[in-house]
Amino acid sequence: MSYLCVGLDISAESLGSSSLMDLKDHAKQVVDNTRDLAAAYKPNFAFFERWGSKGFQWLEEIVDYIGTGPIIIADAKRGDIGNTAEQYAKSIFDHFGFDAVTLSPYLGQDSVEPFLDRTEKGVFILCRTSNPSGSQFQDHQDDGKALYEKVAIWANGINAKDNVGLVVGATAPEELTRIRKIAPDLSMLIPGVGAQGGDLEHSVRVGNQTGVGIINVSRGICFAGDHSGSAIRNAAESYVAQMKILFDG
Amino acid sequence: MSYLCVGLDISAESLGSSSLMDLKDHAKQVVDNTRDLAAAYKPNFAFFERWGSKGFQWLEEIVDYIGTGPIIIADAKRGDIGNTAEQYAKSIFDHFGFDAVTLSPYLGQDSVEPFLDRTEKGVFILCRTSNPSGSQFQDHQDDGKALYEKVAIWANGINAKDNVGLVVGATAPEELTRIRKIAPDLSMLIPGVGAQGGDLEHSVRVGNQTGVGIINVSRGICFAGDHSGSAIRNAAESYVAQMKILFDG
Repeated sequence: MSYLCVGLDISAESLGSSSLMDLKDHAKQVVDNTRDLAAAYKPNFAFFERWGSKGFQWLEEIVDYIGTGPIIIADAKRGDIGNTAEQYAKSIFDHFGFDAVTLSPYLGQDSVEPFLDRTEKGVFILCRTSNPSGSQFQDHQDDGKALYEKVAIWANGINAKDNVGLVVGATAPEELTRIRKIAPDLSMLIPGVGAQGGDLEHSVRVGNQTGVGIINVSRGICFAGDHSGSAIRNAAESYVAQMKILFDG
Repeated sequence: MSYLCVGLDISAESLGSSSLMDLKDHAKQVVDNTRDLAAAYKPNFAFFERWGSKGFQWLEEIVDYIGTGPIIIADAKRGDIGNTAEQYAKSIFDHFGFDAVTLSPYLGQDSVEPFLDRTEKGVFILCRTSNPSGSQFQDHQDDGKALYEKVAIWANGINAKDNVGLVVGATAPEELTRIRKIAPDLSMLIPGVGAQGGDLEHSVRVGNQTGVGIINVSRGICFAGDHSGSAIRNAAESYVAQMKILFDG
């Protein structure tokens, strides 16, 4: 079993081409070269939305191209009032056919319910994010608990149907340890390894201590080396090998 | 001057038809009947995304159809790490050509910077939302301050280029008053009037006390009465008239 999630953040800037055909070909090349290595793929909506309706057509195509087998996670970070969340759930689960989605917790319970109701699908709620200003509000203390801890406690409590997970950045190792204690069984999606410099060893060990922790790498695989198929494959193989040693050892 | 923002939340469920042609026609009918009454339009991305690439094509069309004149606000509630936020900014401002966007604050400063850099565009940061569980995390207390107050203080501090506003629900009148004191000059986008039952009088008075407060109505206009052009126009006229009396009186 692999713990690798390949994040599809295919930008014109990284590829050095703003031809949608080149971007599509590159995305396929990433999938072709990682198909047997990836437990999951995580298309990042922003990189598709950027091209409007043509970008969404590309997103429809790439979800089809990945096909059944790996988990396909919509990195959409949606968070809106109930009747709007209902529409996002229809978009992500019914229209595009994703298996799981990332959600933002700022609007609380009723913003995630339409997604939770789909028991055959999964949600990953943003808990402690990997970006430099992730701590700005997420570390906000109330009654001796940081906001991200309250989010973890809440997520743990709404997991009755076993379809709730958390997003925890590899760049925040102490918080990751604390969150794993609060929510021992929840699946974790751990971004921030690779271009963002997160701690791979700690993430694999702590993320998989008691539950499953999937490690996401986006730019570190999609734009490895000279961007060729073999550079992509080498990078993905190297991540999988490092994770195996860590996990088995 | 009008303080009315017409929210475009055109759902199949409310219209009673899932024909995209019917939905498009209805959206145009809403615009046709409110053009001289609305200061702003706020297409809600979820209702377009639900239909995938065809829905985004519809979004491209409706932005064009509204044209220049009213402010067009992308109700997208995006919030992601810096390099992803950069792509969302390109999508919303460059590709679709919106004038402003709604953003979620959970990821902090670097998640809003790519939007703030566009000084000719505006951002509305979610502060205290209109939904029933809006208080769940937004009221989280730190050092005598609720999270939503910290968000308001922060937003006030990053308004150097006069392009920052706040989203504050009409369903939370006490918080609205407190936020107006914290951020006297910031523009406010105030949803929750109409179907959500928010307090129109309080929202208009307090929202416009020292800065501008735009009142958003979505379902209460788009699906007023029998959904006909005249029912839509009557509802919009009634809202504008109520706001004028309140504001002038």
